[in-house]
Parts: sequence; C-alpha cells; structure tokens
Amino acid sequence: MVIRARPITEALFAPYGSLIAMGAGEARSINEGMCTRWHDRCRPDVDGTVSISIFDAQPRALPYKFDLIERHPKGSQAFLPMTPHPFLVIVSDGPGATPQAFVTEPYQGVQFARGVWHGVCTPLHAPGLFAVVDRAETADNLEEHRSDTPWTVEA
Amino acid sequence: MVIRARPITEALFAPYGSLIAMGAGEARSINEGMCTRWHDRCRPDVDGTVSISIFDAQPRALPYKFDLIERHPKGSQAFLPMTPHPFLVIVSDGPGATPQAFVTEPYQGVQFARGVWHGVCTPLHAPGLFAVVDRAETADNLEEHRSDTPWTVEA
Repeated sequence: MVIRARPITEALFAPYGSLIAMGAGEARSINEGMCTRWHDRCRPDVDGTVSISIFDAQPRALPYKFDLIERHPKGSQAFLPMTPHPFLVIVSDGPGATPQAFVTEPYQGVQFARGVWHGVCTPLHAPGLFAVVDRAETADNLEEHRSDTPWTVEA
Repeated sequence: MVIRARPITEALFAPYGSLIAMGAGEARSINEGMCTRWHDRCRPDVDGTVSISIFDAQPRALPYKFDLIERHPKGSQAFLPMTPHPFLVIVSDGPGATPQAFVTEPYQGVQFARGVWHGVCTPLHAPGLFAVVDRAETADNLEEHRSDTPWTVEA
C-alpha cells in the first residue's frame, strides 16, 4: 500500500505527540536580547529516568518500503536532529491501521507520546544523527508489530 | 584577561557536566542494524519538570568579550546543537575564578550539571539553534555574577 508523505504540521502531528519547533508557543527573550527561548515545547513523560542518547541512523530514500511499527509503553521519545536535514516521521493509530508519513522542515524535532505506534528512525540524508530524549531503562519498553503486507512511502 | 579556547574533551569537561557525543560509552545496534544508539550519554537532573525548548541565539565571533556568568541551582541544562557547527562552551569554578572556554566538534552537545557556573549560549555560526533540555519552571533558577573586569576568549 502506498502512503504519501506530507509536510508535518503541529495540528497533523498533535494526535501522536509534539512537534518541537520555533514559531509556535511562548518566545522569551533571554541573555540580554541575544537569544530567543522557544519555551517548553514538550515534556518527556517516562516511567523511571529520562536520559539523552545519540542515534546514528542509516539514511533512507523515497520510495521507502517498510513493514514494522513499534511503540514504547513506558515513555515518550523525542528526536532532535543534529543536522538541518529534513527527516521522515511515520506514525500509526495501531496494528490494522494505515500509517501516516510526514516530512519535517529544517530545525524541527518531534516527540512521540508514550505508547504511540511509530516507524523506526528514518533520516533522509547522511549523517542521520539525532539527540534522543527517552527512558534510560530499556527493559519492557518495546512492542513491535510487523504487517503482512508492506507499506511504501512516496513523496 | 585572555582565555584561550581549547577543544572540548570528556575528561576536561567532566567537572562541569557531560559531553554528549558519539564514540564513548555504550553503543547499541538497534532497528535491525540500521541505527547505532549511543546510549544514555547523560541524564537531566532537575527539581520539578524536565522540558525541551529551542534556543535561537545570535552567533558570536572570537575574540569574544564577556563579563557575565550564570548558574541554575534547580537543574541541569543540556544544549543539543541543531546544526553541525561547533560552538563555544564557557564554564567556571565560580565568582573569583578564571573561566575556561571550550570549542565543540560537530555533533557534540553538552549538559551543564546543576549549579555549575557557565557563560550564556554562544554559537559561533548562524543559525545558532539548540534544543535545550532543562527545567520547565524558570522561577528561582537563575543566579548571575558580573565580573568587574571582562574576560576575552581567543582562539
């Protein structure tokens, strides 16, 4: 089944988590006017300890074929790109539903809410580097679902 | 007083917090080998609620003159660059001490430990964009110290 990738927006992504971006929410001027703080764009929500990791993922190209979605019942997971490159964000209402695919703009991250079904980390350019804010303890925090028929994300 | 900027290393930065980088710590292969997770490089440590903000800071140039250091008694503060550009990291043992200045490599972030004296956010290139993981509540969480004589960071 073909899924068309759409530009991500705060409204479209809201059922699945938070778009972490400038231009929305509260902008505070700090450091004597030398910095704008786009404040509190999202809050990690984990059972246990929040930690920061770095993900180094292989870039994918469109069309992108996949059959796996996953979710983390014990915590949210934020992906903060360490490059300006757009990346692919796949979410789903669950096994049996057709996933949705979004493409970010430069300088946008996402946080998947706890328990939200999503695709694995899919950068579209090298290097596929993200700072990831999620639960430090990985035990009992991964559910996977593999579809009988794969999906293909197209531009 | 002149301060020479040095390349940041995990050992040099350890007294002040965590260098968030690949190449050290535990590397886990995830997503069927398509991603390396440099796991748990640091943990936020805040009284209250952890949140993620975006900082958009004006870039500075070396030599960089400053007289202000600050600290946050109620929580750590992590700076995760959203571009590959190196940035300047200033830390201090406290009022009366001479600050130290470090320059990062691409794809490195830092977390200042709770209560560590540091300079304000000082990118060296535009856009000066960082995802920042710190305490959501900003009340009672800023102490500033202004030096009678400024410091100048040189390359």
